[in-house]
Amino acid sequence: MPADKATARKRFEGVYNTVRDELLAEFVEYGMATEAIEYYRRLLDYNVPGGKLNRGLSVVDSVAIFKGRDLTEDEYVKAAVLGWAVEFLQAYFLVSDDMMDSSITRRGHPCWYRVPDVGLIAVNDSFLLEGAIYQMLRRRFKREPYYVDLLELFHDVSYKTEMGQLIDVLTAPEDKVDLSKFSLERHQLIIIYKTSFYSFYLPVALAMIVCGFSVAKANPSDPDYYKIAESILIPLGEYFQIQDDYLDYAGTPEQIGKIGTDILDNKCSWCINTALTVATPKQRAVLDASYGRKDAEAEARVKAIYKEVGIDERYAKYEQSAYERINALIDQVPEVKGAGGAVLKRDVFRSFVEKIYKRKK
Amino acid sequence: MPADKATARKRFEGVYNTVRDELLAEFVEYGMATEAIEYYRRLLDYNVPGGKLNRGLSVVDSVAIFKGRDLTEDEYVKAAVLGWAVEFLQAYFLVSDDMMDSSITRRGHPCWYRVPDVGLIAVNDSFLLEGAIYQMLRRRFKREPYYVDLLELFHDVSYKTEMGQLIDVLTAPEDKVDLSKFSLERHQLIIIYKTSFYSFYLPVALAMIVCGFSVAKANPSDPDYYKIAESILIPLGEYFQIQDDYLDYAGTPEQIGKIGTDILDNKCSWCINTALTVATPKQRAVLDASYGRKDAEAEARVKAIYKEVGIDERYAKYEQSAYERINALIDQVPEVKGAGGAVLKRDVFRSFVEKIYKRKK
Repeated sequence: MPADKATARKRFEGVYNTVRDELLAEFVEYGMATEAIEYYRRLLDYNVPGGKLNRGLSVVDSVAIFKGRDLTEDEYVKAAVLGWAVEFLQAYFLVSDDMMDSSITRRGHPCWYRVPDVGLIAVNDSFLLEGAIYQMLRRRFKREPYYVDLLELFHDVSYKTEMGQLIDVLTAPEDKVDLSKFSLERHQLIIIYKTSFYSFYLPVALAMIVCGFSVAKANPSDPDYYKIAESILIPLGEYFQIQDDYLDYAGTPEQIGKIGTDILDNKCSWCINTALTVATPKQRAVLDASYGRKDAEAEARVKAIYKEVGIDERYAKYEQSAYERINALIDQVPEVKGAGGAVLKRDVFRSFVEKIYKRKK
Repeated sequence: MPADKATARKRFEGVYNTVRDELLAEFVEYGMATEAIEYYRRLLDYNVPGGKLNRGLSVVDSVAIFKGRDLTEDEYVKAAVLGWAVEFLQAYFLVSDDMMDSSITRRGHPCWYRVPDVGLIAVNDSFLLEGAIYQMLRRRFKREPYYVDLLELFHDVSYKTEMGQLIDVLTAPEDKVDLSKFSLERHQLIIIYKTSFYSFYLPVALAMIVCGFSVAKANPSDPDYYKIAESILIPLGEYFQIQDDYLDYAGTPEQIGKIGTDILDNKCSWCINTALTVATPKQRAVLDASYGRKDAEAEARVKAIYKEVGIDERYAKYEQSAYERINALIDQVPEVKGAGGAVLKRDVFRSFVEKIYKRKK
């Protein structure tokens, strides 16, 4: 990691410690038992801070770009608290997704529900992770005119993500393979709801809210800045997830830090959906018989068909066209001062694209 | 059920249908797949409306008492939507509690997670039930000056209930009996957080909010109406839960509509905690060896000790003193007009007490 990135991460992590301590102090005030306080600390430390923190850091980065200058200490902490709120939301989804998927490890450690003495309590633990978001928001933002906008944004994005999770499990239950439910349209619907909103739209929309972009238009002739941001960030999230799907198949364990299991797990991935659109009846029969089986030979047969239908070339083509399409959208962002005085800087969006384009991990 | 109660219930249920249809229409607007919409309908219908609806109806009843007159159609619908929001919250907790407790049936049907094709998806389903609350609130209350107060109340009460669930599972895990963790103080902490806030304080506080009791005091000399309500409703909830604990042991299946399993399930019940305060070392040894075992003979030994230590008389004494203590608190409520013009009518609290006192089911 370059030195400036490491410093940025360290400063951001410092705010986690403050937020965590405030949440624990509240538990103490409420008269909770010592063992509950200890448990809560362990729950937070185990699940919130250990990831890549891309989502959280992107709130801070976006605020800095919108402001176009170094942030004051107060501005920094506010942006970082919102960044951590996104990381808490992520933890809430990961703890529960791991249970629903019966996953074994996460970030190189046992999934939380597999930690001794946790088990099914993890359901309530995930609720607490979500509940903590609203405690954090109230403590820091209650007096701000945009407080209710923050609350509604979190409500909305959470609900959409849960909708995405629902269509995902209905389309691709781990134990019942039925490729006739799959399609590129269904895949798109799932990834927009399950990933794009909370991973891409949410961090930028939070930054926009604290930078004074009003959610309600001051003048009917004003551009709808949130719609503009959404129209870029949702395709961007789609592109990111398709990349993720492709790397699960094509990335080496050294690159992606794990062994891809999408084929074994009957995941509704971009690769299978693309293969299905072009498979011959014979190839289709092999895919039907081999996809989602817990069997390395079946997996190898699917991968062979991916090769036959040219998934690598198709992905390269997709990536190039997504990159160009998204850049064209960014070029159209009106960089004029809005009613709140802030400018919707194109660089916010560009910084995402540049982080993602041709990534190999 | 008396005719007027049946009519009230029917009218209230009518509002559920509206709310449910609005939630489903939103799913359609978002472009969700048909099977997701059908699944969501089934999730809602299976889990939200089938209970006693006491919590939800008490919002409507409380608003009517505060207003002191028949409600207009708009007032009724608003109160009923808040009532249903409480029932959605209840459904959210029940779906998840049943998973965490590995329960078998609920309201005479299989628990939701045991319904074919549901299983662990029930975790996400419970999230959707909670998320729906904020969709309902936004649709109906966004333009109200007290909108943010409603949001904060739901956030707070949910978080407290989750805290209560956490200390409950830490104190009384189903598979690890350790009565040294039990005490009447711990029992009180659990039931206040896990039950009282959402079952008693929440419905009345919602009614107070829509009736114009301001959450922030207009004058420093004003009474804190929410604190007053809390100071009555939390002990009331405690009394209700202790009664529930007692009926689990003493009620016949005909009375309570189920077979009590608290002893078998290692529940941190008022009965065991009371017995522990007076048990002789010999009785204590029997309790330690017999409580929380999945074994009818062990259960019978615990029940015999409950008899020996006079649980029935102790409960009768507790009930009488709780009844008098709570009534004394109600008598002190200042029935004067507050800054918002509403009067904190004692009858709101009395109606709860009268429904609960000496109930046998």
